[in-house]
Amino acid sequence: MALIVMKFGGSSVADAEAMLRVAQRVVSTHREGNQVAVVVSAMGDTTDDLLDLAAQITPGPPPERELDMLLSAGERISMALLAMAIERLGVPAKSFTGAQAGMVTDTSHGHARLLEVQPERVRATLDAGGVAIVAGFQGISTDDDITTLGRGGSDTTAVALAAALDADVCEIYTDVDGLYTADPRIVPTARRVTRLTIEETLEMAAHGAKILHLRAVEYARRFTVPLHVRSSFSDQEGTWILVGRPLTEDTMEEPIISGIAHDKSLGKVTAVGIPDRPGAAATVVGAVAKAGVSIDMIVQNVSTSDAETSDISFTIPEADGQTAVAAIRALQDEMGFADVLYTSHVGKLSLVGAGMRSNPSVASELFAALADAGVNIEMISTSEIRISVICDQADLERAVRAVHTAFDLDAEEQAVVYGGTGR
Amino acid sequence: MALIVMKFGGSSVADAEAMLRVAQRVVSTHREGNQVAVVVSAMGDTTDDLLDLAAQITPGPPPERELDMLLSAGERISMALLAMAIERLGVPAKSFTGAQAGMVTDTSHGHARLLEVQPERVRATLDAGGVAIVAGFQGISTDDDITTLGRGGSDTTAVALAAALDADVCEIYTDVDGLYTADPRIVPTARRVTRLTIEETLEMAAHGAKILHLRAVEYARRFTVPLHVRSSFSDQEGTWILVGRPLTEDTMEEPIISGIAHDKSLGKVTAVGIPDRPGAAATVVGAVAKAGVSIDMIVQNVSTSDAETSDISFTIPEADGQTAVAAIRALQDEMGFADVLYTSHVGKLSLVGAGMRSNPSVASELFAALADAGVNIEMISTSEIRISVICDQADLERAVRAVHTAFDLDAEEQAVVYGGTGR
Repeated sequence: MALIVMKFGGSSVADAEAMLRVAQRVVSTHREGNQVAVVVSAMGDTTDDLLDLAAQITPGPPPERELDMLLSAGERISMALLAMAIERLGVPAKSFTGAQAGMVTDTSHGHARLLEVQPERVRATLDAGGVAIVAGFQGISTDDDITTLGRGGSDTTAVALAAALDADVCEIYTDVDGLYTADPRIVPTARRVTRLTIEETLEMAAHGAKILHLRAVEYARRFTVPLHVRSSFSDQEGTWILVGRPLTEDTMEEPIISGIAHDKSLGKVTAVGIPDRPGAAATVVGAVAKAGVSIDMIVQNVSTSDAETSDISFTIPEADGQTAVAAIRALQDEMGFADVLYTSHVGKLSLVGAGMRSNPSVASELFAALADAGVNIEMISTSEIRISVICDQADLERAVRAVHTAFDLDAEEQAVVYGGTGR
Repeated sequence: MALIVMKFGGSSVADAEAMLRVAQRVVSTHREGNQVAVVVSAMGDTTDDLLDLAAQITPGPPPERELDMLLSAGERISMALLAMAIERLGVPAKSFTGAQAGMVTDTSHGHARLLEVQPERVRATLDAGGVAIVAGFQGISTDDDITTLGRGGSDTTAVALAAALDADVCEIYTDVDGLYTADPRIVPTARRVTRLTIEETLEMAAHGAKILHLRAVEYARRFTVPLHVRSSFSDQEGTWILVGRPLTEDTMEEPIISGIAHDKSLGKVTAVGIPDRPGAAATVVGAVAKAGVSIDMIVQNVSTSDAETSDISFTIPEADGQTAVAAIRALQDEMGFADVLYTSHVGKLSLVGAGMRSNPSVASELFAALADAGVNIEMISTSEIRISVICDQADLERAVRAVHTAFDLDAEEQAVVYGGTGR
């Protein structure tokens, strides 16, 4: 008997029919002799509908505490309905709010961090032979207020619950049947990856792959939770994400490159001709962070305009472009640099694979493939298991397809792609 | 400075516009220097929409625990939005779920009874100068499960909160501007009553007046909470409901009859020719109660068919007619009565007024008025401050109008009537 945490996003429970399909799946897993805890998001458009209501009430940003209270109603609806659907199939089921499931968070409304999980009631339900259904995305703060966990919150709830219950696996159900070597909407010949290390998954999630949220993957790594990303529309095995890669015969034959992530909505800011002085990069990063903008990649190099100075370039979400530029311009007098350049519409391609650690030819093969495809590289950044390049957004999809082919990742058949993903 | 609990039903917060109007009213009351706690129901059709979803998921009655979880999402939405609307107007506001407001109930899902109110967080919010908004209709059980209080639950929440906070008044906002001498939809010349004793209100609520729920009135009597029923569409004073009637000059001139309640969806069951034996009524009442049907009025009399036997008649909600008849038929052999008769479509008119205690002519005036209007009386039941008669449903509205006129209750102008009421 295994203890399994199953997580379903909003698109998996978008309407009554989808809800009943999920219930059927949960009941099958339970009838196979497993203990099952389910984490569920709000139904389909519920969150947008609630945000619309809030916008009708108040033109500015609504008070965060009350916005969390409002949004948390969404999971309450979906989890109660799912419990009803499961009971209808003859298996006892109980739904639990974030508070009832012991999801204790800090007091940062809208993007609360989990401090502790106290899953006593969930465990008691499982031990009594029932299915426990837990509201994703929400918790209760140390001040006893309702909080929400922000983007990807339901994945984080699922992984945290799995860790607290010492579950055998945390299954993340989604609208694709696993993680792919590239986004199948862009590379129709992308292949499903059967196993990934958690480090590779982290790099994929951090650099644009949208199936799993970075924060949930970080949590899974910290607490060594085995993840299984799979389709809610089929029974097929998906992608297993494990700490370390077992050296079975099967995995020894896997390619050293796991896949290609991409992110197509970035902007690039460059401060040109910064006089050489220690701490320039720290000043730049600090100013941008203070403006509330997350820096993605940052590169410093000797200036092309003057060998006595250097240039610092960084990428940021495209939507934050003007904010970031303003933050940098405000530093111009103090730091004495020549100019600030901004390029919107840049894209990032990231090649990820644990195998590249010991294979120095990967970088040169990547650059050659991009050159052959006529894609100009604007920035480069690397980690031990990843190489990212920034290019023109218009070239990005062509670049992803070219690199996918160059690294022999193409499958013989085209992947099947379904709808959108939930929160 | 007074402490005021304001309760708004679903029709008062049906959409964003209505919600903003309520917020304006709450803020005005707060700016006049009062401490304000608000109890709010789910928006307009939310409850029906959630019940529709449940019906799509499961054809039979849904599991009660999960139905409560589902329905409680409704207030969570309305109270968060109302808090946003109040904050937008510059007054700090916090919303609280039933659990957060300390509404502790028993474990009877769907019709939980309040056991205790622990309003510490509400009080702390008021003491800090903010408005506290509490979800009506819901609580947390002694097992830490979400419960709902059943019909009229939000009124009960408001009265219980007012009692726990020792509020100066509990204002019940509704779509009419107070309690009337009769339902203004039936008697256009009905007059608004400015003051009622709590006993009179109890009789009105118990016998068909729909503005206030019986349970909330009972709670108000037990904890001596002054109620003020008024319109959410006007600033006019409504009806004050107080324990005892102050003998001011004003009230001394009030008529001894407070008003006429009616109930138009009753059925009447008669067991004919029951051999005289102690306990016959108890057996009948017991069997009907066991079948889950509430008996409204019960009358026993010497049988019209045989002076050695008696007839027992009782009224029940029309929808429960067949169930009640079946329960009585099952007793026929045991009790040895001759027959069971059932009349659907009967109605009840109740004349209520503390003044009738000391005025024996009220009953005869009532019967004379009904006779003049050609209304046949099928049953009569009385309390110290009420006389109820059962008649044909088709005669009921005519009867109400005739009695209203006969007791000089008619106003010179017609009442204004608005839409429906919430939960």
